[in-house]
Amino acid sequence: MQRTIFTEDHDAFRDSVRQFIAKEITPNMPEWEEAGCIPRDFYYKTAEIGINGLQVPEQYGGGGIDSFLFNTVVYEEIGYAAASLGGFQVHLNTVLPYFLEYADEEQRDRWFPGFADGSLVSSIAMTEPGIGSDLAGVATTAVRDGDHYVLNGNKTFITGGIGADLVIVVARTSKDETNRRNGLSLIVVERDMPGFIRGRNLHKIGIKSSDTAELTFDNVRVPVANLLGEEGGAFAMLGHNLPQERLSIAITGVATATAAVNLAVEYAQERQVFGKPLSSFQNTKFVLAECATELQAAQSMLDQALIALDNGTLTPADAAKVKLFCTEMQARVIDKCLQVHGGYGYMTEYPIARLYADARVTRIYGGTSEVMKSVISKSLGI
Amino acid sequence: MQRTIFTEDHDAFRDSVRQFIAKEITPNMPEWEEAGCIPRDFYYKTAEIGINGLQVPEQYGGGGIDSFLFNTVVYEEIGYAAASLGGFQVHLNTVLPYFLEYADEEQRDRWFPGFADGSLVSSIAMTEPGIGSDLAGVATTAVRDGDHYVLNGNKTFITGGIGADLVIVVARTSKDETNRRNGLSLIVVERDMPGFIRGRNLHKIGIKSSDTAELTFDNVRVPVANLLGEEGGAFAMLGHNLPQERLSIAITGVATATAAVNLAVEYAQERQVFGKPLSSFQNTKFVLAECATELQAAQSMLDQALIALDNGTLTPADAAKVKLFCTEMQARVIDKCLQVHGGYGYMTEYPIARLYADARVTRIYGGTSEVMKSVISKSLGI
Amino acid sequence: MQRTIFTEDHDAFRDSVRQFIAKEITPNMPEWEEAGCIPRDFYYKTAEIGINGLQVPEQYGGGGIDSFLFNTVVYEEIGYAAASLGGFQVHLNTVLPYFLEYADEEQRDRWFPGFADGSLVSSIAMTEPGIGSDLAGVATTAVRDGDHYVLNGNKTFITGGIGADLVIVVARTSKDETNRRNGLSLIVVERDMPGFIRGRNLHKIGIKSSDTAELTFDNVRVPVANLLGEEGGAFAMLGHNLPQERLSIAITGVATATAAVNLAVEYAQERQVFGKPLSSFQNTKFVLAECATELQAAQSMLDQALIALDNGTLTPADAAKVKLFCTEMQARVIDKCLQVHGGYGYMTEYPIARLYADARVTRIYGGTSEVMKSVISKSLGI
Amino acid sequence: MQRTIFTEDHDAFRDSVRQFIAKEITPNMPEWEEAGCIPRDFYYKTAEIGINGLQVPEQYGGGGIDSFLFNTVVYEEIGYAAASLGGFQVHLNTVLPYFLEYADEEQRDRWFPGFADGSLVSSIAMTEPGIGSDLAGVATTAVRDGDHYVLNGNKTFITGGIGADLVIVVARTSKDETNRRNGLSLIVVERDMPGFIRGRNLHKIGIKSSDTAELTFDNVRVPVANLLGEEGGAFAMLGHNLPQERLSIAITGVATATAAVNLAVEYAQERQVFGKPLSSFQNTKFVLAECATELQAAQSMLDQALIALDNGTLTPADAAKVKLFCTEMQARVIDKCLQVHGGYGYMTEYPIARLYADARVTRIYGGTSEVMKSVISKSLGI
Repeated sequence: MQRTIFTEDHDAFRDSVRQFIAKEITPNMPEWEEAGCIPRDFYYKTAEIGINGLQVPEQYGGGGIDSFLFNTVVYEEIGYAAASLGGFQVHLNTVLPYFLEYADEEQRDRWFPGFADGSLVSSIAMTEPGIGSDLAGVATTAVRDGDHYVLNGNKTFITGGIGADLVIVVARTSKDETNRRNGLSLIVVERDMPGFIRGRNLHKIGIKSSDTAELTFDNVRVPVANLLGEEGGAFAMLGHNLPQERLSIAITGVATATAAVNLAVEYAQERQVFGKPLSSFQNTKFVLAECATELQAAQSMLDQALIALDNGTLTPADAAKVKLFCTEMQARVIDKCLQVHGGYGYMTEYPIARLYADARVTRIYGGTSEVMKSVISKSLGI
Repeated sequence: MQRTIFTEDHDAFRDSVRQFIAKEITPNMPEWEEAGCIPRDFYYKTAEIGINGLQVPEQYGGGGIDSFLFNTVVYEEIGYAAASLGGFQVHLNTVLPYFLEYADEEQRDRWFPGFADGSLVSSIAMTEPGIGSDLAGVATTAVRDGDHYVLNGNKTFITGGIGADLVIVVARTSKDETNRRNGLSLIVVERDMPGFIRGRNLHKIGIKSSDTAELTFDNVRVPVANLLGEEGGAFAMLGHNLPQERLSIAITGVATATAAVNLAVEYAQERQVFGKPLSSFQNTKFVLAECATELQAAQSMLDQALIALDNGTLTPADAAKVKLFCTEMQARVIDKCLQVHGGYGYMTEYPIARLYADARVTRIYGGTSEVMKSVISKSLGI
Repeated sequence: MQRTIFTEDHDAFRDSVRQFIAKEITPNMPEWEEAGCIPRDFYYKTAEIGINGLQVPEQYGGGGIDSFLFNTVVYEEIGYAAASLGGFQVHLNTVLPYFLEYADEEQRDRWFPGFADGSLVSSIAMTEPGIGSDLAGVATTAVRDGDHYVLNGNKTFITGGIGADLVIVVARTSKDETNRRNGLSLIVVERDMPGFIRGRNLHKIGIKSSDTAELTFDNVRVPVANLLGEEGGAFAMLGHNLPQERLSIAITGVATATAAVNLAVEYAQERQVFGKPLSSFQNTKFVLAECATELQAAQSMLDQALIALDNGTLTPADAAKVKLFCTEMQARVIDKCLQVHGGYGYMTEYPIARLYADARVTRIYGGTSEVMKSVISKSLGI
Repeated sequence: MQRTIFTEDHDAFRDSVRQFIAKEITPNMPEWEEAGCIPRDFYYKTAEIGINGLQVPEQYGGGGIDSFLFNTVVYEEIGYAAASLGGFQVHLNTVLPYFLEYADEEQRDRWFPGFADGSLVSSIAMTEPGIGSDLAGVATTAVRDGDHYVLNGNKTFITGGIGADLVIVVARTSKDETNRRNGLSLIVVERDMPGFIRGRNLHKIGIKSSDTAELTFDNVRVPVANLLGEEGGAFAMLGHNLPQERLSIAITGVATATAAVNLAVEYAQERQVFGKPLSSFQNTKFVLAECATELQAAQSMLDQALIALDNGTLTPADAAKVKLFCTEMQARVIDKCLQVHGGYGYMTEYPIARLYADARVTRIYGGTSEVMKSVISKSLGI
C-alpha cells in the first residue's frame, strides 16, 4: 500500500541520501566489514550532507528538525542498500537523543557543534558482563570526589565503543541498596581521560562494520560537569528514550527485509532452473508472496508508530510490539529470501548473505524479544 | 496503538451497535447455531437501527453513506462479541455492493427499499461442485429465450442460500470457448421462481448460524430485467468487488482475534493453577504478548487498507495481503488463546471454542490463502 | 520407512480389526456423533473379536497379552479410519491399566470377566472444575465411615462419564495439609450407587461420539473393598500409568495425521483446478511432502517409544516428548490437509473436517502441551 | 530415549574419537576458520586412528567395515564438539563411497592406499555456475581424444576444492540432446594436471574451515583410466549415493542441534538474570523443552534410517525426509538456543554463534529443502 507518512521534503531528502549511499557506502562496505569499523572521515561526509545534525538545534549548526521522520529516511535507505552502519546509527539514533533531551546549556555549547559537523562520535555503555538488560544489576560505580566522579567498572557489547569520542556511561552513584534503580546516573566519559581503556573489538556473526567493544574504567576521573541530566535519574532517562531506540531497530528490520525481498525477486527472475526462471515455480511465488505480506503488515504497523512517536502518543508497549514484530518478521523473511538464492545465498559476496548474518542481532539488542514480551504483557494487565 | 481512522460519529454508532448486539444477538447465538440459520425477523430489527441500509441511497430509505467505515464498525462489533452471522454479513457486505454498483434504475426501484427495510435478503451463487474459485470452469448456463434467460446448473457452498429472497447467480451466457471468462453474467433469481431448488443446509465445523446451501436451477426462467450489469461482464464485476469483500473477512479476522485475546486475558486472570493465577506464569504472559503483537500488526495494516478502500487506492494485491495476513493471524491467535483455556477451551459453551470453530473457514472462503498468494505474487512481477 | 515393530501376528490382528471397523464403526460414526455417545452393544461386539480383553489375564476370559502393541494396532486402525471413540479408548486404554496393575484378587474376580466380555464399561474421574491438571488441588473427599467411604465432590470433563458402569474417582482420604499429594486415593464408584449423579453431556468442538460428563458425588457410600491400590497412593499410581496413556494419545495423533495425508493426497489427485489436478501444483506437492516428513519423524519416535514401553525403559519425560511432538504435529498436518480440501474441508461430511475438529483436544487432555514441557524441562536438569 | 543402534564396539570407538577431537580439533578450530581450510597433516592424524580408512577394504590398509555406523560416530562427535570439517567430511563421506562402489581393480590399487593412509584428499565437482542441482544442465564437457578425455568447463561451490588431490568431475561425454542425463560421466582429475585451475576460496556465512572453490578446467587431458564407472552412467551413480550423503548431513544436523541444546542448558543454568538463574524462567524451560522434543523426533527418525541404510532398504524418499526434517529442525533449534544466550550468542567466540552460522548451509547443500520436497512428493504418487 502507498505509504502516507512522508511529504515531498522527505522524498527529496531521500533522493539525496540514496545517492550518497550509492556513492559513499555501498562500494566501501566490504572494506569496512573487513576492518571491523567505519572510518572517521565518513562522519564528516555525512555531516556535510546534513545527516548528523538533523535534530541538532540550528544555533549549533544543525537542522533543528523536531521529527523523527527524516532520521527514518536515513535508516531506511541504509537498510534498502543492504548496508549496516551500527556504530553510526547508535551515535545518531541512540545517543544523540540523550544529549538533545538532557544536556544542559554548557554541554550543548560544548558538544552540539561536534555532533553537527561530524567531529564528535558518541556511544553509550549500558550492558555489563553477565547482567544483560537488567539495569538493577549495574556494578560500575561513580564515586563523587570533589568536582569529579571517579569511575570504576567494566562494560561489554558497546557498539561504537572502539571509535567513540564521548561515551555515556551508566554508573551507580548511590550505594542505597533499597532502590537499586534510583542509584544510576549517566556520565559522559571523553576519549582521552586517563583510565578509560578500550578492549577488544569483539567478533560477531554479522554487522561486521560495527565495532563492538569491551570497555574498562579504571579510576577514571570525570568532571561533574559531564553528568548528563539529574544524578540518580538514569533509569527514567533510559526508559524515556527506549521507544525511539526500538523503533530505529524496527526501521532497520523492515528496510532490510524489503531489500531481501527485492533481491530475491530479482534473483528469481534471472536464475534459470530446469530450463525456466526460478520465479515461475509456484513455491517461489508463494514464498515471496508470504514475505511481501508480512512486510506490509510490519510497514503499516511501523508507520503508524512513527506518527505516534512524533505526536508523543507512542507507549513503551507499542514500541515493544513494533520492535518484536518487525525484527521477528525480518528474521523469517530474510531467511526465506536467502533460501531462494540457493548456494549463492550462503556466499558473503551476495548481499543477501550479509543481510542474514546482520539480522540475527536485532532480536537481541535494544532489548531481546523476551524483554519485549514482558513489556507487552504488562500492558495487557497480566 | 490508538486507532485513528474513526470519527465521533463512528464511535456513537458503535455504541448503539454494541448495545443492539448485547441485547439481540449474544443471547440468541446458541439457538441460532442449533437452528443452523438466523431468523428472518432479525433482518427487520437490524434495519430498524439502520444497519441494513447504511450504503443504500437516501431516496430508497437508506443512509446514503459512501464509506465502508460504518460497515466496518458493524462487523467489528459482531466479531468482538464472538458472534458469527454469515448469511447476514454476506447479504450486506458481499451482495449489496453488487446492487449498489451495477443495478439499473428499475432494479434500484424494485429492490433497494427491501434492502433498507429488511424485507429482502440476498445471497450470491458463484461456486459450483468441483470448480472452487475457478470462474473459467462455471458450468451453469443461462440461455436467452425471448425476454427470459433459462437457467440450468448446480451451485454449492452458498452462504445464506437457504434463506435468501434474491440470489445473484453467476451463469454462462455465451458458448464462446475462446474466452470462457467473458461468457459469464450475473442473473438475479428470485425466491419463488419455478425450478429454483434449495438443497441441504450443509453441516460445517463452525459458523453454524450461517445456512450454507446447495442450490439447483432446473430450467428456471428469469426475466432479462433481472440481469445485473452487462451481459458477459460478470468476471470484471466480480473482480471489482473482491477487494472490499476480502477486507470484510479481514475485519472479522482481526475482530474475533481481538475477542479471543480479551477472553484469554480474562480467563488467565481468574483461573488459579498450582495456587496462583494462570496469568502469573511467564508462558501465559509471553503467549498473550505474542498474540497482542500480531494483532496490532494486523490492525495497523487493516486500518491503512480501509482508508485506502474509501480513497479508491486499494489494489487487489493490497486486499489480498490484508486478507491473507489477517486470517492467518486469526488462526494462530485464536488457537493460542484456546490453549490458554485448557479443557474449557474445547467446550462450545465457552465463546473461545466457537471462535476456533468459526475461524477455520476464513482462510478458505472469499479466495483461499493460496489464491491470495497467487494474486500477491503477480504484483511482485513474478 | 518400513516399520519394524510388528510381527505377523500383529498384522493378522490388524486385518481383522480393520474389517471390523469398516463394518461396524465407519457406517455408524455420523449417528454416534449425533447421539453424543457410543451405544452399549458396541462394547459387546468388540469383546467378541477379543479387543476388550487383550490384556486381561486368560483365566478371566482375556487374551493375557503383556504387550501394548496389540492395543496399538487397535488405536491405529481407529485413527486410520478417521474415527474417534473417546469413551471406548479411555475404558480400555486409560482405565483398564489401573485395574490390571492395582486390583486385588477379589476385585479381579469381580470385574475382569466384565472387562473381557464387554459387559463392563469404565471411566476415570480426575479433573475438577477449576483445578485442571493440578492433583494437589483435588477437593473431592472420601471420608472413612466403618467399612465404607463417603464420597462428596464434583468432577468435570469425564470422558465416558455418562455411560460408565465403574468410575475410578480420585478423592482425598486424608486431611493432612502438609502433603496434599499423599492424601489422594482411587475409589471405584459403581453405576447405581445412591448419590452418584451424572450431569450434562458437555458439548465439544469435536470428538462428538465421546460422552464428556460432569459428575457429582453427594454422600455416595462406597465399600472399602472398592479402594484400588493403597489408600493415599493415588498420586504415584496416576503417575505410573501416565506414560502409557500419553503414548495412546500420541498413537491417535499419528494415525489420524496419517489418515489426513492419505485423504488429502487422494483429494488432490481427483480434484481438478484450472484444468489440471490439484496434485500437479507445486504448492500442493510441497505441503503434502512437508506433512509426510513430519509424520515420519513422529512415527519413528513413537515406534521407538512403544518398544521402550514394552521393555519398561520409557521414562515420563520420553513419553511427554512423544505426546507433545505427535499431537502438535497432528494439529499442523491436519490443518494443512484440510486446507488442501478447500471449502469441502470445512464440511463435516468430509472426514478431514471431523479429523480437524477432533484433533484440537489432543494438545489438551492427558496433560496439556504446557504440562508436557514442564515435565520435559525437568529432565534437562532445569 | 536410549538409542539402540550402537554396540559396545561403536561406544569404544566413540570414546577414542571424542578424545582425538578434544585434543586435535577443538583447540585448532579458530585457527582453521581464520585460514579458511584444514591443514593437510590433519588427514594423516585421522588416518592414524583409523578414521579415513574405515570403509576401505583391508588389503589396502583400511578397516573393511561394511556399515555406515562407525562413520556415524565420527560425524556425530564432530557435531557434538560444535566443530565443522566440511572438506574432510566431503572427502570421506561423499566422495569415498563413489570410489568404493565404482572404482575398478586398477583404480582401487592406485588410490585406496592413499585414502587409508591420509595421503590422498578428494572432492567432487558437480555444481556449475547458474545450474544448481539440475544435472541436466551440466555444461562441462569431456571429449574423447584417443586414450584421454579433454575437459573444459567451470564448477563452483566445490567443498574441499582448494585442497583436493583428486576431484571427481561430472562432465558431459555425449552430445546426444535427446537424453541429456545419459550423457554424463564421472572423471577423476588429479592435482597437477595441466589446465586444472583452482579459483578463489569463496567467503561464506559459516563453515569457514571448509574451503569452497570455483574450479576451471581448460583443456585438461585426463587419461581414460580415470573414468569412474561406466561412461554415461554418472546420473545413476550420483543418484545411488545420494541417500547416504543426505543422511550424513542429517547426522550433522542432529549432532549440532544436540550440542546447541547442551550449550544453552549449561548457559541458562549459570547465567543470572534479575537475580535468579536464567534456567528458572518458565520461558527458558519451555523453549529448551521444545528443542529437546524436536531433537528426539529427529534422532529417532535418523536412527531408523541409519539401520535401513545398512540393511539396504532406505529409499531416496526416506533419505530426503530425514535430511529435510533434521536440517530444518537444526535451524529452528540452534536459533532458539542462540537466543537463550542473548548478546553472547552473537559473538563468534561462543560456540553457539559458530553453530548458527554453520547451520544455514545444511538446508541448501546436498539438495535444497525444496529439492527434498520434490523427491518426497513423488513418493506420495503426486
